Amino acid sequence: MLSFSECKSKIDQEISKLTFHDNKPDELYQPIAYILGLGGKRIRPVLTLLACELFTDNSDAAVHPALAVEIFHNFTLLHDDIMDKAPMRRNNPTVHHKWNENIAILSGDAMNIIAYQHLCRTKTEFIPELIDIFSKVAIEICEGQQLDMNFETRTDVTLPEYLEMIRLKTAVLLATSLKIGAICGGADEKAKEKLYLFGLNLGLAFQVQDDLLDTFGTEAEFGKSIGGDIAACKKTFLYLKALEIAPKEQRQTLKKFYNDTSITRSDKISGVLNMFNELRIKEIASEMVAYYTNAAMRALDEVMVQKPKDELKSLAYLIMNRKA
Amino acid sequence: MLSFSECKSKIDQEISKLTFHDNKPDELYQPIAYILGLGGKRIRPVLTLLACELFTDNSDAAVHPALAVEIFHNFTLLHDDIMDKAPMRRNNPTVHHKWNENIAILSGDAMNIIAYQHLCRTKTEFIPELIDIFSKVAIEICEGQQLDMNFETRTDVTLPEYLEMIRLKTAVLLATSLKIGAICGGADEKAKEKLYLFGLNLGLAFQVQDDLLDTFGTEAEFGKSIGGDIAACKKTFLYLKALEIAPKEQRQTLKKFYNDTSITRSDKISGVLNMFNELRIKEIASEMVAYYTNAAMRALDEVMVQKPKDELKSLAYLIMNRKA
Repeated sequence: MLSFSECKSKIDQEISKLTFHDNKPDELYQPIAYILGLGGKRIRPVLTLLACELFTDNSDAAVHPALAVEIFHNFTLLHDDIMDKAPMRRNNPTVHHKWNENIAILSGDAMNIIAYQHLCRTKTEFIPELIDIFSKVAIEICEGQQLDMNFETRTDVTLPEYLEMIRLKTAVLLATSLKIGAICGGADEKAKEKLYLFGLNLGLAFQVQDDLLDTFGTEAEFGKSIGGDIAACKKTFLYLKALEIAPKEQRQTLKKFYNDTSITRSDKISGVLNMFNELRIKEIASEMVAYYTNAAMRALDEVMVQKPKDELKSLAYLIMNRKA
Repeated sequence: MLSFSECKSKIDQEISKLTFHDNKPDELYQPIAYILGLGGKRIRPVLTLLACELFTDNSDAAVHPALAVEIFHNFTLLHDDIMDKAPMRRNNPTVHHKWNENIAILSGDAMNIIAYQHLCRTKTEFIPELIDIFSKVAIEICEGQQLDMNFETRTDVTLPEYLEMIRLKTAVLLATSLKIGAICGGADEKAKEKLYLFGLNLGLAFQVQDDLLDTFGTEAEFGKSIGGDIAACKKTFLYLKALEIAPKEQRQTLKKFYNDTSITRSDKISGVLNMFNELRIKEIASEMVAYYTNAAMRALDEVMVQKPKDELKSLAYLIMNRKA
């Protein structure tokens, strides 16, 4: 069985081998090679390969579907960056910044299609199911991105709505990456569903953990400056949980203070932290992470295979205790 | 066999029945229903149905793949309109104008995926080939759009480059619409290829005809004001052919005059028309239209079926002698 790092090397190698119609026209294909070349942890395609290897000794059938997942994921980053007007991605200029918006729109469109091409470079018998679940997750991610954009201007977002948004925007792709691997490995229905649930809960745990680290982490742990979500008035698990459990008066104070853009960054962060601490938000969020992580591990335990599931388990813990 | 107008009614009816996840989130799905509801001639899906009916009495298997073609085509219009900053489409505000750019990007992305979903709502045995040719044409259209954008700022575009651009941007989708229908009808390889060639040549004829009408048509014929391409310094078949055949000195005069934005619209149009007339550009372009139309009809003649091909033939002539 391949280890996590062997899978990552395989994916990196396959990505470096990708060629697109002799790169003509350049303006269409250079941005694709660029964003795919920015690196990253390749978690999703690695999950696909590791899931496949649980069921077969030869994971060749999963290699191109794994690339499909990574290409699709990078397509969503590319278009999200346009929508967010983000100048940087992985310490490099974003595509719309390095080239222009039109090129970013069109090369993203091409990546969406190229993802489907790779998805189908596998055994013919797998194609209909792969297309079905891939299209489903792709649409869900669009829905999640739209909800996320809506949340920016809405003032009445609830915690359940937030959890639904992160399910769509993040968790379902991790879940589907695993399920795609299982399909390519010839897994039965139950194993496919359990791996999906493993990924889904892992994704939810990951996102709540991300919110936790942004506010309660250390910069060494989180890799970027702490309190960014609070400074940006971002609706996170922490904020929405605080609104949910705070008594009416405190809720109104928090809402006003959190969305006040006239307060200095450090005053804002320390003020919100005080309110979060009063409400024991850190503890509640940590319990939520543990809850989703346990649900993930239980689902993984129910995948009945002879082979060891250690690599998937360590990858899960790696994601959760990550530095960035 | 269904007639052209029966096919169009069927497509319009199927499009009006489309629902998207209870339209939630609204902002994602309303623009999709909006652009699909703006109407249009539905030429591409009608070609799919008509092609299918040549080979089978029951074209049900082609209905959703036909919708896929129409949804994909409208997705490209939606994103092209963002890139062109076009305010209007079919006498209505464009999506990015009516909503905003982010919503237009994202709902377009969703349409691309929804197109794949419809493409696969057919017999399982057809899916791998359909996905293969659909992805190919989708990528070609992206390449065509990128070339078209590049042409706007390039001053050295040649006629062969232009023909390659319109092949990619327009002709291959007509060709593939027919081939998809043929596949869903169970056609053999030769018939599929001949129908593809029929559509390809029809598309090239259509685009050269479009350039002709813009300059030499009447407003009644063309449906919009004449000379728009000249006024916008657009690199058309007429202009590029003129550059190709003009003697060196005349070529330089034309190039300078055509791209001079300080001349009034009417002076510009009449000046260019004089040069085009000297070079007999109208006649040459008309011969080109006839050449491609004949090539299309020859390809259609080589499709060996018992059923009459009259509807496809009349549709071809309808496209060529169109008013708008």
